Amino acid sequence: LFDGQLRFARDAPIPRRDGEALIRVICAGICGTDLEITKGYANFRGILGHEFVGRVVESPSRYMLGRRVVGQINVGCGKCHNCLTSNPGHCPERTALGIRGRDGAFAEFLSLPPQNLFEIPDSISDEAAVFAEPLAAACRILEQVDILDSSRVAIVGDGRLAQLIVRALAHVRCETTMIGKHAEKLRLGEEAGARAITLGQAEKEAQKFDIVIEASGSTSGLPLALALVKPLGTVVLKSTHHGMAAADISTAVINEVTIIGSRCGPLQRAIDLLASGAVNPLPLISARLPLEEGIRAFQKATEPGALKVLLELVG
Amino acid sequence: LFDGQLRFARDAPIPRRDGEALIRVICAGICGTDLEITKGYANFRGILGHEFVGRVVESPSRYMLGRRVVGQINVGCGKCHNCLTSNPGHCPERTALGIRGRDGAFAEFLSLPPQNLFEIPDSISDEAAVFAEPLAAACRILEQVDILDSSRVAIVGDGRLAQLIVRALAHVRCETTMIGKHAEKLRLGEEAGARAITLGQAEKEAQKFDIVIEASGSTSGLPLALALVKPLGTVVLKSTHHGMAAADISTAVINEVTIIGSRCGPLQRAIDLLASGAVNPLPLISARLPLEEGIRAFQKATEPGALKVLLELVG
Repeated sequence: LFDGQLRFARDAPIPRRDGEALIRVICAGICGTDLEITKGYANFRGILGHEFVGRVVESPSRYMLGRRVVGQINVGCGKCHNCLTSNPGHCPERTALGIRGRDGAFAEFLSLPPQNLFEIPDSISDEAAVFAEPLAAACRILEQVDILDSSRVAIVGDGRLAQLIVRALAHVRCETTMIGKHAEKLRLGEEAGARAITLGQAEKEAQKFDIVIEASGSTSGLPLALALVKPLGTVVLKSTHHGMAAADISTAVINEVTIIGSRCGPLQRAIDLLASGAVNPLPLISARLPLEEGIRAFQKATEPGALKVLLELVG
Repeated sequence: LFDGQLRFARDAPIPRRDGEALIRVICAGICGTDLEITKGYANFRGILGHEFVGRVVESPSRYMLGRRVVGQINVGCGKCHNCLTSNPGHCPERTALGIRGRDGAFAEFLSLPPQNLFEIPDSISDEAAVFAEPLAAACRILEQVDILDSSRVAIVGDGRLAQLIVRALAHVRCETTMIGKHAEKLRLGEEAGARAITLGQAEKEAQKFDIVIEASGSTSGLPLALALVKPLGTVVLKSTHHGMAAADISTAVINEVTIIGSRCGPLQRAIDLLASGAVNPLPLISARLPLEEGIRAFQKATEPGALKVLLELVG
């Protein structure tokens, strides 16, 4: 629970909503966005958490009952232009699990409409299924930008999301370079098929990349991305963070760079990548803790070397 | 001449370059970029000016001799990938007239390669021809973004470039809104077919526009553009200015906005718009002064109500 201060609340009320399914959470993941919310991002108060796998225990559509699912986190009004064009994530009235107007997954139960739920095949473990939501966000890039086999792609960042992006790109045959600070994380990027370089090395590669994906979670990521991208190239912004980013935006004008904001993505595509074994997220798990140790889990997630920290419900 | 301080230099040397044409300047225009350069933008030292009409007095290609021309301002190396794909404006070795490594048009003569020159038909006056270069920059937007008849387009800014953008869009049947501060400039925007509103009114139109074109020349333009654009919409950045723009870039991520930098454009298209009368730039002229009064002309161009100030060579 975050109410200006992060704290663990026992006996949260069961979040039943008309027309929605009730899901008993099995396992949930801590995301960079959760950490940013505790710094003030999105001005959210309530139960955090939007990466989860759970089991449907109540549902208006009987088909879903008892199934193991992950969930699309945005719930639109169902009536506006965005909702009617399959973009509930851009509905101005939307709620978003653990981010906006809706309690999240760091609890025993959560509520989402049945149409937001995607069944997880038995071949995907609980620990891997938790990665479906952030892996879908990584796959969103492939919906927005044409990445060719000949494309030179840089990923700014070596953290949780950056690692999943490398893995989502591994089945495109582009040249992928991960740029980061942490030797161990860069090594994980290399394992997934990326060339891995440090920030210092990246300074020598100005204007070398067709596509630069900013996934550092830091306000310094955008200026670096603008320095790395070729004229007429594309910068994809994946990080949401609290605060202002200052950039000499004239660079983007002079080089006619395209900058694309990128958020939630196609869950089914992510599930398919996990089910086929094309993406193995398990090396990205830094720690697994019971929900009761949520505060400690958040602390662990902020440590410099940390990647994904999972919260497990033993029930 | 700008060498850290703006001053007028009599008897500038005649800028002859191998393989290039020599053009006697008839008339030149002061652009926002010129004003930014005097504040430190682009770190340029030399003769300013890149909007001009002139007559070819020497040329390696005889065809051009004696013709009245405007010029594409970027000169590439001719050998790199960008040059060979018709993008000399993105050549890393390029010079640019009055902006980068090449003396500009606020002089009796300037030098450009013959292939950079475009002949001006007799139907276009000298005063109108000077607008070909900035009007081409406005037309660049139409090459980069699909603007539909149903598109709602906002232009942030009511100055020189914003006025030309309104006029370039007038033959697209989109709904165009100009957002500015100056009643007289907004009236000129209305004359050209735009709906014109003040910054205060614009605050009530958050997320109402499919496309927002930032042409304010101010660092506050980007945050406003991000507030005005719809989710999944497009922001076009036309302003180059000295200094950093701070923006809560998370807005662009959450709303999955596309931000496109846009610079120089198709001169022939601009010439055609001027020749057909589709665009009449003459109401945008605030003052015409002889080159000798260049310093006063710059002062006039910085006045709040000023639009285009022309420098004329009486020879």
